[in-house]
Amino acid sequence: MTAAILSERDIQFMLYELFDAESLIERSRYEDHSKETFNAAINTAQQIAAKYFVPIRKKVDEQQPTFDGKKVTMIPEIKVAVDAAIEAGFVSSTADYDYGGMQLPLMISTAANAYLSAAGSTTMGYIALTSANASLIENHGSPEQIEKWVKPMRSGRFAGTMAMTEPSAGSGLADLLTTAVPAEDGTYRISGSKIFISGGDHDLNDNIVHLVLARIKGAPAGVKGISLFIVPKVLVNDDGSLGERNDVALAGLFHKMGGRGHTSTALSFGEKDGAVGYLLGEANRGLSYMFHMMNEARIMVGTNAACTALVGYQYSLDYARERFQGRLPSCKDPLSPPVSIIEHADVRRMLLTQKAYSEGAFALCLFGAKLADDRHTANSDEERQKANTLLDFLTPIIKSWPSEYGPKSNDLAIQILGGHGYINEHPVEMFYRDNRLNPIHEGTTGIQSMDLLARKLPMNQMAGYRACLAEIQHDIEAAKLAGLSKAAEQLSVAVAILTKTTDHLLGSMMEKPIDLVLANSVKYLDMFGHVVIAWLWLRQGVVAQAALNAEPHQTEQDFYRGKLQAMTYFLNFELPLLEAWSTNLINLDATFYDMENSWF
Amino acid sequence: MTAAILSERDIQFMLYELFDAESLIERSRYEDHSKETFNAAINTAQQIAAKYFVPIRKKVDEQQPTFDGKKVTMIPEIKVAVDAAIEAGFVSSTADYDYGGMQLPLMISTAANAYLSAAGSTTMGYIALTSANASLIENHGSPEQIEKWVKPMRSGRFAGTMAMTEPSAGSGLADLLTTAVPAEDGTYRISGSKIFISGGDHDLNDNIVHLVLARIKGAPAGVKGISLFIVPKVLVNDDGSLGERNDVALAGLFHKMGGRGHTSTALSFGEKDGAVGYLLGEANRGLSYMFHMMNEARIMVGTNAACTALVGYQYSLDYARERFQGRLPSCKDPLSPPVSIIEHADVRRMLLTQKAYSEGAFALCLFGAKLADDRHTANSDEERQKANTLLDFLTPIIKSWPSEYGPKSNDLAIQILGGHGYINEHPVEMFYRDNRLNPIHEGTTGIQSMDLLARKLPMNQMAGYRACLAEIQHDIEAAKLAGLSKAAEQLSVAVAILTKTTDHLLGSMMEKPIDLVLANSVKYLDMFGHVVIAWLWLRQGVVAQAALNAEPHQTEQDFYRGKLQAMTYFLNFELPLLEAWSTNLINLDATFYDMENSWF
Repeated sequence: MTAAILSERDIQFMLYELFDAESLIERSRYEDHSKETFNAAINTAQQIAAKYFVPIRKKVDEQQPTFDGKKVTMIPEIKVAVDAAIEAGFVSSTADYDYGGMQLPLMISTAANAYLSAAGSTTMGYIALTSANASLIENHGSPEQIEKWVKPMRSGRFAGTMAMTEPSAGSGLADLLTTAVPAEDGTYRISGSKIFISGGDHDLNDNIVHLVLARIKGAPAGVKGISLFIVPKVLVNDDGSLGERNDVALAGLFHKMGGRGHTSTALSFGEKDGAVGYLLGEANRGLSYMFHMMNEARIMVGTNAACTALVGYQYSLDYARERFQGRLPSCKDPLSPPVSIIEHADVRRMLLTQKAYSEGAFALCLFGAKLADDRHTANSDEERQKANTLLDFLTPIIKSWPSEYGPKSNDLAIQILGGHGYINEHPVEMFYRDNRLNPIHEGTTGIQSMDLLARKLPMNQMAGYRACLAEIQHDIEAAKLAGLSKAAEQLSVAVAILTKTTDHLLGSMMEKPIDLVLANSVKYLDMFGHVVIAWLWLRQGVVAQAALNAEPHQTEQDFYRGKLQAMTYFLNFELPLLEAWSTNLINLDATFYDMENSWF
Repeated sequence: MTAAILSERDIQFMLYELFDAESLIERSRYEDHSKETFNAAINTAQQIAAKYFVPIRKKVDEQQPTFDGKKVTMIPEIKVAVDAAIEAGFVSSTADYDYGGMQLPLMISTAANAYLSAAGSTTMGYIALTSANASLIENHGSPEQIEKWVKPMRSGRFAGTMAMTEPSAGSGLADLLTTAVPAEDGTYRISGSKIFISGGDHDLNDNIVHLVLARIKGAPAGVKGISLFIVPKVLVNDDGSLGERNDVALAGLFHKMGGRGHTSTALSFGEKDGAVGYLLGEANRGLSYMFHMMNEARIMVGTNAACTALVGYQYSLDYARERFQGRLPSCKDPLSPPVSIIEHADVRRMLLTQKAYSEGAFALCLFGAKLADDRHTANSDEERQKANTLLDFLTPIIKSWPSEYGPKSNDLAIQILGGHGYINEHPVEMFYRDNRLNPIHEGTTGIQSMDLLARKLPMNQMAGYRACLAEIQHDIEAAKLAGLSKAAEQLSVAVAILTKTTDHLLGSMMEKPIDLVLANSVKYLDMFGHVVIAWLWLRQGVVAQAALNAEPHQTEQDFYRGKLQAMTYFLNFELPLLEAWSTNLINLDATFYDMENSWF
């Protein structure tokens, strides 16, 4: 098997043909860059992925980290791989030069990281979380905190985590119990238990910087009384050297269905005198800071889900081309040779569905990265504001659509390999297991659906919603001009269903119990996600059609026809489901709402 | 956690209220039985499941069998559990008294085995395959073969397997290469490699009886040249004692995503002089005999998928009741206590969907078992013939609908537990992994869909199809009389869509390339499956409504209301998807058919 990690051609298509990444070079932040430096970074990631990540993925999955009560042990290959990625700068690819970064646009960094994520999401996890942690402190920390914590994270000396979840509170952050008591020196003493902390303990780096949500004694109840603290595993002296061990102990490791190389830990803060913690920003505003990291992490989760879907698609595609089995229904001659299984229409169904899901999801994530770049570096205030509004609105969809449809894509890869997909000689069942975490962490799909319907939709006089529909409408017009009028019409119909449904739901919010109106919110998220993915496929179709009109050589023609076919799949097979979902939403179908506990 | 393995109340409902199992007692084959003996068998299985199967399931999953090049080693608890089930008679519950069986109806045996399957499908696998193997030899073997092989299997001394798949042929049985050469004594010498043979080697029993598909030298090409052989692991002397080791060697074990206690083996026949094999029935008719076992195995696979879904549903239901987290959207008071998560409408969505999928799937499997009983023991020839026709027709749906929707159900159980569902402290992620094999083995979903559309549908002037629709129509009328007119109308609409689609497809088969007509066959299988499950839900609804009309006490009312609500879910949320699928089928949507290899 020589399956590609990702399709190089497709990455180039998305960056330069679909999202015009080259235009970013004109912005002052990226003025040192060029298409060549962008591609060099991507190319480096690809090489590291192939050399260090792919060869160890099976071993990483089979030999989980262990904890002997004192220390975490993991196979040494993980450190070699993480170090290679750090050394090449992938923990700081978007960071300022001043902090040791490469100052790449997030869109380019996303494309580069995609290789590492696809080749070993579990290994990449350490790097991605460190980067997100550093980004939060860069944005909300004091200059001293940036100097002390961010710089060693950006250089790869320290790692970073986010420590939110607690055993009793779970997703209900309002109920977290970890406490912070002010000490005389201006620091705090942190006590409490956190669970599911990814990368919460290991020896890959000299130190681990935990960002911990806790309540300062006497703070208000609920989410308004939560503060954010920097709590290092090892205290750091003023000169940057390591001091004593902080009062942070590993209580245990969780054994997960997938993502097994990335330790998931239970951490105990303050078993002795309280762990030393440093308040970040203002007291009681911790959750808003954490949302900085969480929003970034949500986009990372979506991207990881998309990448894991992409790599499974590539693997099963390669397998389907090389595996010969069976004959077409029209063939009645048992002496004719078996065909490559890609000749079976049902195998092509499973491949094309994977292509539509995974490339659609990845386009969405790159679009999110582009918006994140635009909100900081677009030329006008208005453009920056618009990007910010749109990204905020789309975040629950960027997090959850790839997370829901990525595993479905991986599931099809398993099915294509059949019995061989169910055993660990091939990585497709691992891809599924790795990907299955994504609809859970950083806010479950249910939570994302409430965020979309109850919060993001009505916010700022529906500015995000309007901006999104305007973008879609723009591309529908472009599709009509490009000769894709049937496809444009299909998306128009879907948008009409979406807007009708939305209007009904907004009306209901005024008149009906909110718990009833939100009871089917996951269906609304599904619906909106499908419209957004269909839109991005239409946009890809417009680019592909224009390229085909120029009559490129055969390989290029094939590539663009594949894009159009995946678009057609999504429009013909997926979008028509909206009608049924819409009926349930418009009717405020109360089946779930009415179901009583005792009836189960 | 004290989650039930299965809902006792539901099993009783299905057997005695829905399918009138008690009426079977009137048939001479079951005249020694009574509702009490039926329930005693079920109760015994329940106790064995709770005592021997549940406590070991985590260990079985974690400690896979190993092979040191000579011998398979597995944790000893598996043998204890298997022996307990054998001793209680569950390897021969449906077999004749003459062969050491309990002569139970398959419907009752299915309900009893459901507990073992739900509690440890991987452990149950050894017993289920042995029983299916014995059943095949009972039906097609000579009296001597029955004496020599069946009796020790029915007593649990020997185990049985089916050995079909080969490394190069996979699902394409026509291409299998294993050969059989006649020896002078009337036996054969078998040579070849088989893979994915479940239970292919172990020390749980004294001997293993492999049923091996092979080609007698000079046989016709394709499926018409395949014969079936009994090939034991150890040769058996005429007095029943064990003789020499046969030339059957274990080549290796596969490491699977799930079902880890059930060894999946690569077997090598005839590495030395050829394995001794005994022809079963006539030469070149092997595949038709194997289909006896395969049809039984297909129903077993569907049932296993349904049971694994049921146990996941029960577990997540128990968890949702006991886990307190978050508040309802309408609650703005952070000081109010968190609610049990079953109070969240989205959690109820995931529970009710599981209930609808798993109980719907299990009802279908019990209905299949009832048909299997009827085809042998119904009172008139006509009834027997009708049951036979209907079961034949429904087999691809019984195999695949539970296999496809069972894992989806387990997936929702994971999601309800959130982060806790992703770790192995809870069994829900294991249930998913165990269940994921079911859409693959005994004919993939794609193969089942071709079987339904190209074979079962047109067969015998569409007798199976017509019989199925007549049954459905009968229950639609009953639902109208029972006051469920809205539900009856919903199913009528779906049936109209199904018949319109079927008519179009049959017309197309005359006029269009068969490869195009069959290209979307999985959508047709999905559609038919949904209609069948909706029908069985309507039937459950009719029974529940009648029971409610009699104003039973509160607990019973709750149970029946839950049934009606699950029916409503399926009719309101699942059936409306048919319209979209139908459009693709009627249009002969060529998206997959047209997609070229080079476009991917």
